[in-house]
Amino acid sequence: MNIVQPTTTPALSAELIAKFRGIVGDKYALTDPADIAPYTTEERDLFHGHSPLVLRPGSTAEVAAICRLANEQRIGLVPQGGNTGLVGGQTPHNGEVVISMRRMDRIREVDTASNTMTCEAGVILQVAQQRAAEIDRLFPLSLGAEGSCTIGGNLSTNAGGTTALAYGVAREMALGVEVVLADGRVLNLLSKLKKDNTGYDLRNLFIGAEGTLGIITAATLKLFPKPRAIEAAYVGLKSPAQALKLLSLSQNEAAGTLTSFELLSAVAVEFSIRHGIDVRDPLESKHSWYVLMELSSPRDDAPSTLEAILEKGMEQDIVEDAVIAVNLAQRQAFWKLRDEMSAAQKPEGGSIKHDISVPVVAVPDFIAEADAAVAKLIPGSRPVPFGHLGDGNIHYNVSQPVDGDSADFLNRWHEVNKAVFDIVLRMGGSISAEHGIGVLKRDELPDIKDKTAIELMRAFKAMLDPHGIMNPGKVL
Amino acid sequence: MNIVQPTTTPALSAELIAKFRGIVGDKYALTDPADIAPYTTEERDLFHGHSPLVLRPGSTAEVAAICRLANEQRIGLVPQGGNTGLVGGQTPHNGEVVISMRRMDRIREVDTASNTMTCEAGVILQVAQQRAAEIDRLFPLSLGAEGSCTIGGNLSTNAGGTTALAYGVAREMALGVEVVLADGRVLNLLSKLKKDNTGYDLRNLFIGAEGTLGIITAATLKLFPKPRAIEAAYVGLKSPAQALKLLSLSQNEAAGTLTSFELLSAVAVEFSIRHGIDVRDPLESKHSWYVLMELSSPRDDAPSTLEAILEKGMEQDIVEDAVIAVNLAQRQAFWKLRDEMSAAQKPEGGSIKHDISVPVVAVPDFIAEADAAVAKLIPGSRPVPFGHLGDGNIHYNVSQPVDGDSADFLNRWHEVNKAVFDIVLRMGGSISAEHGIGVLKRDELPDIKDKTAIELMRAFKAMLDPHGIMNPGKVL
Repeated sequence: MNIVQPTTTPALSAELIAKFRGIVGDKYALTDPADIAPYTTEERDLFHGHSPLVLRPGSTAEVAAICRLANEQRIGLVPQGGNTGLVGGQTPHNGEVVISMRRMDRIREVDTASNTMTCEAGVILQVAQQRAAEIDRLFPLSLGAEGSCTIGGNLSTNAGGTTALAYGVAREMALGVEVVLADGRVLNLLSKLKKDNTGYDLRNLFIGAEGTLGIITAATLKLFPKPRAIEAAYVGLKSPAQALKLLSLSQNEAAGTLTSFELLSAVAVEFSIRHGIDVRDPLESKHSWYVLMELSSPRDDAPSTLEAILEKGMEQDIVEDAVIAVNLAQRQAFWKLRDEMSAAQKPEGGSIKHDISVPVVAVPDFIAEADAAVAKLIPGSRPVPFGHLGDGNIHYNVSQPVDGDSADFLNRWHEVNKAVFDIVLRMGGSISAEHGIGVLKRDELPDIKDKTAIELMRAFKAMLDPHGIMNPGKVL
Repeated sequence: MNIVQPTTTPALSAELIAKFRGIVGDKYALTDPADIAPYTTEERDLFHGHSPLVLRPGSTAEVAAICRLANEQRIGLVPQGGNTGLVGGQTPHNGEVVISMRRMDRIREVDTASNTMTCEAGVILQVAQQRAAEIDRLFPLSLGAEGSCTIGGNLSTNAGGTTALAYGVAREMALGVEVVLADGRVLNLLSKLKKDNTGYDLRNLFIGAEGTLGIITAATLKLFPKPRAIEAAYVGLKSPAQALKLLSLSQNEAAGTLTSFELLSAVAVEFSIRHGIDVRDPLESKHSWYVLMELSSPRDDAPSTLEAILEKGMEQDIVEDAVIAVNLAQRQAFWKLRDEMSAAQKPEGGSIKHDISVPVVAVPDFIAEADAAVAKLIPGSRPVPFGHLGDGNIHYNVSQPVDGDSADFLNRWHEVNKAVFDIVLRMGGSISAEHGIGVLKRDELPDIKDKTAIELMRAFKAMLDPHGIMNPGKVL
C-alpha cells in the first residue's frame, strides 16, 4: 500500500550534491540508496518516498546553510526527526532532499531554577524525559513512539499523547523555539520566560506547521514538578457513555491531578493482547469497554483519590470491575497494553486510520454513528477505537474484515475517511487531533477549514517560503 | 503628564462620519467631545488621545463593515475594551476612530460538558468569572482591573495577572477566537476542541497583537474545575531571596495547587495601607518584604498543605511571621491590600512604571541592581516593587522623591526605563511581561527583540494590514 503516489523529479546535479555535501561533510551526506532507504519509508509501510540525498547537519548554522542553498537553487527540503509521523509529513514523496535532524541531539542547557531545558531538535523524547527525571523534574509529553521520536518532530507536529489532559499538548510545553527560515535566516525565540508580551507570538506559527514554514532546530521546554505519588487503574465498563460518567466523576474528585484517561475498545484490547509482546490482560473478566486512568499527586501523604473514585464508580453502577496497580511493574504493564495498540493492528491486515477529536461529551455518539457508517460501507470491517477520552481525541481505526483482501480494503481509505469525517465535522470536531495533516489529509483540509483561515495559511506560506522549498506538498 | 505627544490628523468628512454612523446606528456613534472624552483618556492620566468619532458596534458583522469602510478610506481604527490598558494601546493618539467593543457583551454559549464558554469581546472579565462560578466552574484569569476590563482586551494584550502561576496567561485560556481582519474578512477560529492539528496556529498571532493585526470579536474560553478549598497566607520575610526559598518550598509541597505567589515590598504595602480604601495591615509586626500566597485544592478533605509549608518555612528561618486567612472575608482583605497597590502610588506623586520579567531565580538580583541604578540616577526616588514572583514578573515602579517635582521626575521616564531595561536584558528578561508594548515601549522594541523576529513582525503587519489602519503606531 502506498497511500500517496510518488512523483519523479529531475535528478540533482553532481555539482549541487557536492555543494550540499560540503556543508555537512562527506560522512553526513548520504547518497547510497541503501543508506537512504530508512529515511524514505516508515514503520507502518503506508508511505514510500524517494530521495537522492539525505543530509545530517550537526548545527543550526549547517541547517541555515542548507536552506540558503536550497532556496537559491529551488530544491525541495523535507525535515525529518525520528521518522515516526503518521501522516506522511516526514516522507520525501517527490524526490526532495531529506534533512535528518537526528544528529542535533544536544541538550544545550538544563536550568533547575527556572525549570527549563533547552534541547536541540534531534533529542529523542525519551532522552528528554530521562534527563528531566534525573534532576527530579517531569517532562510530561508521552506517546507510543517516545523511544524514537524527537523533540523537533514533536513540536513540528504539535504532538499530543497520553498526558495532554493535564499538561496540554506539545505547544504548551515549549517556552521558546529556534527556527531556520526558508532563506536561511535564523529566528531566535528561545526564552526561559513564563511571561513575555513583547510583540507578536511567532513561536506558535512554527509549532505544528509540520516543517512547511521553517525548520525548528531547538526549543526551550518547560519542566514540571515530579509527581510524588502516581496511581493507575484499569477499569472494565459497559460503554463510552459510562466511561464519560467516570471521567466526569474523576475530574470532580481529582481535578488537575487526573493526568491520563484512555478509553479502550474491547477489540483494541484483544488485538493488543493477541499480538503485543509481553502484554497480559489485567482483568479476569471481559468487558465491552475499558478505561486506563492515571492520577499524579504532588503529595505522597494524601489519601488515595483513585480508590475513592472507583468506589463511587461502583456504587453508581458505572464501573463493572477495576484493578489498581499495586506497584510500578503493574502500572507499566497497563501502559504496555495501551502502547502496543497501534502496532497490534498490523497483523490483523489493512487498517484505515483516523485521528479525530470532537467535544468530549460527543464521543459516545461519535463512536456509535461512525460504527454504523463504517458497517454500512464495508460489512464485516472491524472498528478498533481507542484514545484520549479526556481530550475528546479518538483514534478511530478500522481493521479489514477477517477474510477480506487487504488491498481492496485499503483502496476504500478515502471513502471511509469521508464517512467518518462527515460525522466529525457535524459534531464540530477536528479531522486531525494530534497527528497533523501531512499529505494524508491535505486534500481534505480546504473543505473542512474556515475559508479565511485557509487564505491566511496560504498567505503565510507564500510569505515565509516564496519558492515553496519547505516540505513541499505537505499541509497545503 | 502626557507620555506620548498626540498628532493632529485631518478631520473626517461629514460624509464619512455619516457612513460610519449608518453602520452602527445614530445612538452608537459618538461625536460630541463630552461623550468621547472617556474613551480618549485613561485612569492614570498618563495618556491623552483625541478622536472625532467613537463607534459602538453591536455585532461582528458591524465590526466587519466598519473595518471594510475604514480600509477603503484609509482611516485609522483603535479598538478598545474596558480602557484599562497600561501602555497606551487603547488610546487614539493620532485622532483615529475608536471602536469600543463594550456593547458586544453577550455570552454566546456555556457548555458545561465541554467546559467551555464562548464570550463576545466586550464581556467584562468579572462577569465571565461570575458566570463560570454559577455553573460550579472556574474561569481563572484574575487581575486588578477585572471589574472593568474585557475579554477582548485581555486576549489582545495576553493579560497575565495573579493566577498565571497555575493556570497560565490569557493565551492559555482561549481555545479559539473570532477575528475581524483589516479588510473586513471574518476569521472564525472558534473551537471547543482541546486538540486540533489541522493547519497553522493562527489564533495565537492575534492574541497579544494589541489590535494591530485584527480585532478579536469573540473567544471560546476554557473553564476549569472550581477549587473545593482555597487557603491564603500573608507572610513577612526578610528579602526577595527568602521569598524565592519560600516559593521553591511551596512548589515542592503544593505543586500545581499553588495558584498565586505575590511578592510585595514594604513600600508597596505601606502605600496601599496609607491610600487604599478599607485596607488593613494583616500582620502586627513590620517586615522588609511580604508574600501573599494562595493554594487551591480540588479536595476539601486533604490536610492543610499551607500550614505544612509555613511550618517548614519557620523552621528553616525563611518566614519571620505569617497569618493564614481564617475565612473568606480575611482572604479578600489580603487581596484588597494587593489590588490597591497600583492605584495607591498615584497620591505619592509621579511614578515611573516597569512591567518586567526575568528568570524566576534572577528576581532578587534584579531588584538589588535596579534599586542601585535608580538611586544613582535620581537620589531619593522610591522603588515600589511588587508582583508575581512565581512568574518572574515584577512591577518595578518608582515613585518620585518625597518633596520633588512631579513633572521633572516624569521627564526622566525613558532614562530610568533604560537603566532598568539594561539590567533586565542582561538577565535574559522581558521589558514587557504582561502589559504589552502599546506606544509606551514601541520605540524600545527594535533594540531588544531578535532582528529576524522584528522583520517577521513587520512582514505580518504589512500582509494583514497593508494600509496600516489597525491600531496605527502601536507595537511597531
